[in-house]
Amino acid sequence: MMAHKKHIYFFQSGKAAGSAKMKNLLGGKGANLAEMCNLGIPVPAGFTISTEACVYYLNNNRKWPAGLKEEIGKNLSRLEKVMNARLGDSKQPLLLSIRSGSRASMPGMMDTVLNLGLNNTTIKALVKLTGNERFAYDAYRRFIQMFSNVVTGLDGALFETELKAMKKRKKAALDTDLDAAALKELCESYKKIYKKKTGSPFPQNIGKQMEMAINAVFASWNNQRAIDYRKLYNIPADWGTAVNIQSMVFGNFGEDSGTGVAFTRDPSTGANSFFGEFLVNAQGEDVVAGIRTPLSVDGMEAVFPQATRDLRKIARKLENHYRDMLDLEFTVQQKKLYMLQARVGKRTAAAAIKIAVDLVKAKKITKKTAILRIEPTQLDQLLHKTIDPKAKLNVITAGLPASPGAAVGKMIFTPEEAIRMAAKGEPTILVRYETSPEDLSGMAASNGILTVHGGMTSHAAVVARGMGKCCISGAGDIKLDENNKTFIVGRTAISKYTWITLDGSTGRVILGKADLVQPELSEDFMTLMKWADSVRTLEVMANADTPHDAALARKFGAKGIGLCRTEHMFFAKERILAVREMILAENKSGRAKALKKLLPMQREDFKGILKAMAGLPVTIRLLDPPLHEFLPHTETAVEKVAHEMHALVGDVKKRVETLSESNPMLGHRGCRLGVTFTDLYEMQARAIFEAAADLLKKKIDVRPEVMIPLVGTPEELKICREMVEETARKVQKRKHIKFPVIVGTMIELPRAALVADKIAAHADFFSFGTNDLTQTTLGVSRDDSGRFLPAYVEKGIYPYDPFVSIDEEGVGALMRTATKAGRSARKGLKIGICGEHGGDPQSVTFCHKLRLNYVSCSPYRIPIARLAAAHAALNHPRKS
Amino acid sequence: MMAHKKHIYFFQSGKAAGSAKMKNLLGGKGANLAEMCNLGIPVPAGFTISTEACVYYLNNNRKWPAGLKEEIGKNLSRLEKVMNARLGDSKQPLLLSIRSGSRASMPGMMDTVLNLGLNNTTIKALVKLTGNERFAYDAYRRFIQMFSNVVTGLDGALFETELKAMKKRKKAALDTDLDAAALKELCESYKKIYKKKTGSPFPQNIGKQMEMAINAVFASWNNQRAIDYRKLYNIPADWGTAVNIQSMVFGNFGEDSGTGVAFTRDPSTGANSFFGEFLVNAQGEDVVAGIRTPLSVDGMEAVFPQATRDLRKIARKLENHYRDMLDLEFTVQQKKLYMLQARVGKRTAAAAIKIAVDLVKAKKITKKTAILRIEPTQLDQLLHKTIDPKAKLNVITAGLPASPGAAVGKMIFTPEEAIRMAAKGEPTILVRYETSPEDLSGMAASNGILTVHGGMTSHAAVVARGMGKCCISGAGDIKLDENNKTFIVGRTAISKYTWITLDGSTGRVILGKADLVQPELSEDFMTLMKWADSVRTLEVMANADTPHDAALARKFGAKGIGLCRTEHMFFAKERILAVREMILAENKSGRAKALKKLLPMQREDFKGILKAMAGLPVTIRLLDPPLHEFLPHTETAVEKVAHEMHALVGDVKKRVETLSESNPMLGHRGCRLGVTFTDLYEMQARAIFEAAADLLKKKIDVRPEVMIPLVGTPEELKICREMVEETARKVQKRKHIKFPVIVGTMIELPRAALVADKIAAHADFFSFGTNDLTQTTLGVSRDDSGRFLPAYVEKGIYPYDPFVSIDEEGVGALMRTATKAGRSARKGLKIGICGEHGGDPQSVTFCHKLRLNYVSCSPYRIPIARLAAAHAALNHPRKS
Repeated sequence: MMAHKKHIYFFQSGKAAGSAKMKNLLGGKGANLAEMCNLGIPVPAGFTISTEACVYYLNNNRKWPAGLKEEIGKNLSRLEKVMNARLGDSKQPLLLSIRSGSRASMPGMMDTVLNLGLNNTTIKALVKLTGNERFAYDAYRRFIQMFSNVVTGLDGALFETELKAMKKRKKAALDTDLDAAALKELCESYKKIYKKKTGSPFPQNIGKQMEMAINAVFASWNNQRAIDYRKLYNIPADWGTAVNIQSMVFGNFGEDSGTGVAFTRDPSTGANSFFGEFLVNAQGEDVVAGIRTPLSVDGMEAVFPQATRDLRKIARKLENHYRDMLDLEFTVQQKKLYMLQARVGKRTAAAAIKIAVDLVKAKKITKKTAILRIEPTQLDQLLHKTIDPKAKLNVITAGLPASPGAAVGKMIFTPEEAIRMAAKGEPTILVRYETSPEDLSGMAASNGILTVHGGMTSHAAVVARGMGKCCISGAGDIKLDENNKTFIVGRTAISKYTWITLDGSTGRVILGKADLVQPELSEDFMTLMKWADSVRTLEVMANADTPHDAALARKFGAKGIGLCRTEHMFFAKERILAVREMILAENKSGRAKALKKLLPMQREDFKGILKAMAGLPVTIRLLDPPLHEFLPHTETAVEKVAHEMHALVGDVKKRVETLSESNPMLGHRGCRLGVTFTDLYEMQARAIFEAAADLLKKKIDVRPEVMIPLVGTPEELKICREMVEETARKVQKRKHIKFPVIVGTMIELPRAALVADKIAAHADFFSFGTNDLTQTTLGVSRDDSGRFLPAYVEKGIYPYDPFVSIDEEGVGALMRTATKAGRSARKGLKIGICGEHGGDPQSVTFCHKLRLNYVSCSPYRIPIARLAAAHAALNHPRKS
Repeated sequence: MMAHKKHIYFFQSGKAAGSAKMKNLLGGKGANLAEMCNLGIPVPAGFTISTEACVYYLNNNRKWPAGLKEEIGKNLSRLEKVMNARLGDSKQPLLLSIRSGSRASMPGMMDTVLNLGLNNTTIKALVKLTGNERFAYDAYRRFIQMFSNVVTGLDGALFETELKAMKKRKKAALDTDLDAAALKELCESYKKIYKKKTGSPFPQNIGKQMEMAINAVFASWNNQRAIDYRKLYNIPADWGTAVNIQSMVFGNFGEDSGTGVAFTRDPSTGANSFFGEFLVNAQGEDVVAGIRTPLSVDGMEAVFPQATRDLRKIARKLENHYRDMLDLEFTVQQKKLYMLQARVGKRTAAAAIKIAVDLVKAKKITKKTAILRIEPTQLDQLLHKTIDPKAKLNVITAGLPASPGAAVGKMIFTPEEAIRMAAKGEPTILVRYETSPEDLSGMAASNGILTVHGGMTSHAAVVARGMGKCCISGAGDIKLDENNKTFIVGRTAISKYTWITLDGSTGRVILGKADLVQPELSEDFMTLMKWADSVRTLEVMANADTPHDAALARKFGAKGIGLCRTEHMFFAKERILAVREMILAENKSGRAKALKKLLPMQREDFKGILKAMAGLPVTIRLLDPPLHEFLPHTETAVEKVAHEMHALVGDVKKRVETLSESNPMLGHRGCRLGVTFTDLYEMQARAIFEAAADLLKKKIDVRPEVMIPLVGTPEELKICREMVEETARKVQKRKHIKFPVIVGTMIELPRAALVADKIAAHADFFSFGTNDLTQTTLGVSRDDSGRFLPAYVEKGIYPYDPFVSIDEEGVGALMRTATKAGRSARKGLKIGICGEHGGDPQSVTFCHKLRLNYVSCSPYRIPIARLAAAHAALNHPRKS
């Protein structure tokens, strides 16, 4: 017979079976307790049941693994020996805390039971032993409540009500005002409640208590709170939690005791100053609960000078040992300090950067470690305005945090109004059911966007992120009443022009004007980004359609524009008329007239953006959306357009009908427009090259590259390429200047990926359009996915939203095929990605592993992409 | 220096440089002339310029390949020697015919010049030589006209006008009534026209005449007629044409001469009886032109007994030699027979089958040859009613031949009316702008469907083909005026209830009731299909949704149902209400109520279809389309439905709005419905298994298989499969009977193909849904593709419509991946195809090469698929 697997790791100050390296097995808390013991730091002795035991328990119909029971017995005996006390002993009873602790920190998500070991016998011993009846009954009433709630699942309110009633009867303001008699009485009432609700008396068998508590901690891995938290932070469901069984020390022993938390540096700013809070005569959760105001570390020093000096010394020792800022929990029992927890502390992005850079300067960590310590997505916080953390907020509802930052403005309902009010300098929040390309100028004019419908990748979300504008989407509790110009949340009706504030980083919708805090890019930020740039191999480009965005992108470190969408230029007020004229034209000559009007406008657009990116490549994508997107859709809008165009309403309507499509995403768009209406793409190519020629003549180093969208066959690209080259030749001849003509294509259809070798024959570069590639590969319309995709992610059908991070198994397989085929046909072919995924760290890592040349993303995502690319390079070094 | 390539092949009765095997080089005509010479058949001597010379000429800026000129000179000399006459000679002038002849027969598409060699000198020699002045000038005037028209490009009408004027002046009824003087005068007028129009006199240099004629034939390969023809029959543009230069014989020499065409068997019925038409005193094109009524072969025998006997003998000899029915051209000059052409004759499908079977019986060909001689698509003719070929038709417009057959009925505009009139037994033709799933019962009730919009794969086309019902789609010249209940074509308004006839095999729309001919499946057809079945390795299944279709499919040889769509059952009058109730239900319990109503209906559906297919598998696909397809869309329809359902109009409207999608094709449908509304699929599974259990208890051998649509991930299939299995277990327990539970999936998304190995773990079979797979892989919506796909096929971007034949490069690559991955994970996995492509011979061949197990197609395509599968097996034998 095989020996049983070891499930339990003992620890006591000075030596422990585990260490900080054994986080997976012992959980963060258990591993760090062991580590502290090994460092000789005072930690109450105990033992940790491994996560494996928990996983076994959960997978095997709530049965313990073989040998666990015996191991617990053995370790308990050892603990009793160390503590010179025995569980259930009527003289020297041992009391225990039983706490969860998983591989990743999940604060407050799982269960804890303190003071275990009390019953009607041991309570008497405790009174005698401590000579402190009040303390003993306080511990007992806490234990009964906690056990009943956590282990048995009774409602905690049952006990709180009883406590309140007792305080009222005794005219006690605080819990600490209740005397021993009152607490003793409370224990009796609590036990009665327990019996009434469960049908059994409160368990007196302490072995049974412990077994039940261990099982409760195991089971708490799968409580709803924990499941939700794991989903939010992408923590695998199969990790399980460890159980830490530790002898109790008491911060509530009396005025010579207390409990506290501390950070080795300031978690908000990163400043190198010890920071902590301490509560006298209190136990664990009292500090967090915020019932009484805690002391600062300095305040603590005045009361407990030795313990505080010890704490400072230990903190310094631990920080030097862990080489990172730590979050500590400690208890002082009768003036003696015990450390209960040490872990790497959570911090703001700004603090994270400062700490990392400071530690490099202090030669505690390497630059590589510093880079890897900053989560790329955290940087978002640094780039946008945020709500002042000190502000009091009236949150009325919440939606999806679609585009980060915060915005304050008067609520309005139409893009026209946003434009009108922007002209008067009035800030607005545009509220829509959902947005469409027609709303674009209104969106640009507003300070923030709130939509009732749509997900993280809805039109509003994508456009807002591109604009670096705050947006909340899918705020489904809002009932929009566009006619009455109000919206209703619950029973509150909010009318037009009311001030509201959006927190795009959390999704909160706030009534009134909240105070905002301006972001600033610190010296440390610049330093860290420089280090990141020096290690990454992926280039980072920007998705930018305007000179303003181009300038912003440069500031954020873009090395060119990877996607300049020309359609956004078509929506501007003075353009849209000409665009519509072109669409409504009956024939080529009518179209030619309209295109002639558009040519100089587009040329100026391109001049602006090329100039802003002088010295760097600008990848200009020719028109992509179906033409009907430029036409009005409502009855009234059709009438208005007809009037503006001096056209018949019937004619406009008919054209709109003719052009409408059942599945526009798969319709007459992209290069299909270029192939069927060659004059349209020709005009765009001409505008690009004329702009370039004019600037080159002025000695401005501009580098346009033409990108053809929605290619599915080599022939399409060939036809478009020939047209672009011919147009370039004509411009070169007319303007008497030579320039290189670079033409590439988007790879955004499965077929394009499958025939990438043949397409490469006509392409100077590939750019993966992963938005469309995801839609077609998965057969999922981004706009319609809201009805099932959230359920799909919840059920684990997709491990994450494939519109946020690249679906590596499906879409990624096609990208791999295309990259290999493209480069096999054309050695060293430049390949990048310009879908929304280009700014997503997980996707950036995938692109790095695929050996792409660059990612392109919206300006505000550029620092994130740079850092993510650095992480990828460090974690997955390229072999050759 | 290398010797020049040989470009010219000489032939004369008794021996020839070429043979029938050299069709690619000599064209069909040239190769067969050579073959006849080799058989010793009387053929006027001549030589053939190869297709390679033509290709060179067209690719090299209209220059002849090196050496061609010299070769022509040499062969001409040889011909002059054989014929004892010389080109341009003033005593014994040689006259030539110059004819095109490509690898594939393209009758009348390219150019021919007869009587070349005449000029003002040789005409006199011809008069003297023949002693027949009338004949000579008749030949000359024909030559001038033909040369001017074919070689110089002058309008033939110029000469016809002149001829008519002359006949009027001379009071001649027929051309043959004109005397020599008149014809001589006509030659002079013709030459004047030539000079006036071209600025040069009619060419007198006969060498020059010949060179110009050869070039004209070369160039005619690229005339518009020929290009269009090639496109229609998929003939490659780079084949080129050969040029046959042959000494003239004259059917117009006088009453002892004539010309004719013949078939060795009847091309309409296949009957083994010699069939021909002969015209006395006529040249080539006169027979085809139909100016005079020709004689039958028997009639000819009375006038030219020897020549007719020779003809019969030669015909027999040739048929025995070629082992196929031949189409012959011949001329009798002064009672002597000359053969001018022999080729395998075109024939109807019925004739093709009869001839092939007869030749096998006569041991002339093998069964394999017989099978390969029948084009699978031809069979369509045999399965549907057709318009009596003798009927006089008033064709008013034409559309796409979307679903073959013919139908006569009264024109109506609404599906409701079709149902109403069908109830009274009145035949109708349903005319719609385009159809939608709501029109389904109306479509079923009508005799034929005509749509103004949509292509060969529009909703109307697909559904009609599935129903085996005649349909013409995309008849774009029709202006539909649904309100006034008329439609207008050109200046004709046709009102409701007018009788019209549709010819779904050609796309013709005919005013009035045309006579139809009933199809019948002949003994020979059955024999041939039996032979085909014995060689094919692919199984053929049916797409069928009703017991009626199932029975039809069995009759046509289906080995089960590969796709039974359950949604069609949902549209029936009494169901749709319950379906809508289900969709409009606010919650699970409301849905449960509606589903309970649907359960017994679906159970009966399945009983019917399972019974009709007893002994064979029936693959039932669970609900696929998005729910909004079942809801009304117009204002009026919404009101009606709300009324029927006792629901508020506003509520129905809101639900319709909520469910509407931007890209329904990529929306909330297929297994996404099953995963999110599990009760719906559960009801369907229960209906299937309850139906099966009831029938099995009655000892009826039913074999349902459940197919899950739109799977993109293994998890989706796993979830659905578990639900189906659980439902089956419950039914088995309740009904006390065991049966196998078979669950498979459609592979119709690129992602499914990419992760097919993982999907195979949960699948008992795969069925490629190539309609959706094509849409997603190419990113092309079938419904919207009409705006660019035709242009794409025309430009060669796609070599053919990818919705008709599988896009092997793109979609096919994914099918290959999925087949390989699926079978690597699950050895011997059953894989088929159930998209529209399953009935397309080219796609069937591809499926055979992929080693699929079966194709599934609509009942009327089954014989086609069986024969195509046999062709594939013979042409691409499986190695192992």
